[in-house]
Amino acid sequence: MTNISASKRKPGRPAKGGLEFGDTREALLRSGTELLTEKGFNSTGLDEILKRVNVPKGSFYHYFKNKEAYGCAVIDNYSQYFIKKLNSHLLNEEHPALDRLQAFMQDAMQGMEKYDYKRGCLIGNMTQELGSTNACYRDKLSKAFAIWQSLVADCLELAKQQGALAKDTDSTLLADFFWIGWEGAVMRSKLSRDNKPLELFSAQFFQLLPKP
Amino acid sequence: MTNISASKRKPGRPAKGGLEFGDTREALLRSGTELLTEKGFNSTGLDEILKRVNVPKGSFYHYFKNKEAYGCAVIDNYSQYFIKKLNSHLLNEEHPALDRLQAFMQDAMQGMEKYDYKRGCLIGNMTQELGSTNACYRDKLSKAFAIWQSLVADCLELAKQQGALAKDTDSTLLADFFWIGWEGAVMRSKLSRDNKPLELFSAQFFQLLPKP
Repeated sequence: MTNISASKRKPGRPAKGGLEFGDTREALLRSGTELLTEKGFNSTGLDEILKRVNVPKGSFYHYFKNKEAYGCAVIDNYSQYFIKKLNSHLLNEEHPALDRLQAFMQDAMQGMEKYDYKRGCLIGNMTQELGSTNACYRDKLSKAFAIWQSLVADCLELAKQQGALAKDTDSTLLADFFWIGWEGAVMRSKLSRDNKPLELFSAQFFQLLPKP
Repeated sequence: MTNISASKRKPGRPAKGGLEFGDTREALLRSGTELLTEKGFNSTGLDEILKRVNVPKGSFYHYFKNKEAYGCAVIDNYSQYFIKKLNSHLLNEEHPALDRLQAFMQDAMQGMEKYDYKRGCLIGNMTQELGSTNACYRDKLSKAFAIWQSLVADCLELAKQQGALAKDTDSTLLADFFWIGWEGAVMRSKLSRDNKPLELFSAQFFQLLPKP
């Protein structure tokens, strides 16, 4: 968690419950990420988010202009967390490129299982719920997908160099295809409450990949 | 629309606004299908659904026990409509099997465009929003996917017989894979507000299909 020194704290507002400004903001983002991923944006009240981290409503507006600005910050927060998770697998030089993608998928499946298939992917959930309605969300969500896609495209490009994919494979299109399908699989796993859709998508994706 | 004769109408309740019992029920389902597809279940109030078809709140409970029962009926209604749409393409003997699937995808893209990419697929939307929370919805949504998958599996099996797919293709797994990805593409098209994700998914899917 970020620890902002007292001199950087906004004047006239004491830290709540002993938490520093940055800590409280982080706690609010964490609380929102959990609740919005599980229940969706429209079903989650501000009160519930605040209650979880013991922050009074008046203080919320010290950290965020409104619920929309908060939603945008939650998307940023999740996207950054997810980039780290992705890179921890996709840049892992101990394994060949396609094994790294496989390892990410396994990790994601464990994550789904850990939360009893209730959470899924915040970016996917918010795309479905709010993707068509709000300019700030659309922008943030689109950028998140664009970054994830470019990371997977790099990984597939490496797989080509390693001789695991046909030389004429378009890594960018294939990475886009991967994310379109993977988010679909995450959604279906919430419904089936098991990893079967994720496993099925993963197995078919690897089976259909153009061989060298 | 169903037209139930006066003798079948529930006693003691006059038809509202001149509509027969069955007509009013159908109008409520149509209104709900439109609103739930566009705005989601939790964001759509009963008042809004009723206002659209000029039905007073008291009457609603004459047709449906509660909002949940209504949601289940809306899913059934949409699923039936969609099976007809799918079959109109997949059983069209004027074209080879894979062209039929392609034609369905084109039709769906036109549907997305028609509603300015705001609606998407009711089954996909409700899966994302409610799939993990409610037994009745989960059951209805799972069954809808199972039927759609079996229709596409039959089509892919025919494509095999027609020599357009490798003989060892597992049509069932491939059909599951198709629906997982297609719903992902519908979701992404709501975000990009164009058909690019649908077109990309379609092109990649056909390109990756195992050739005979």
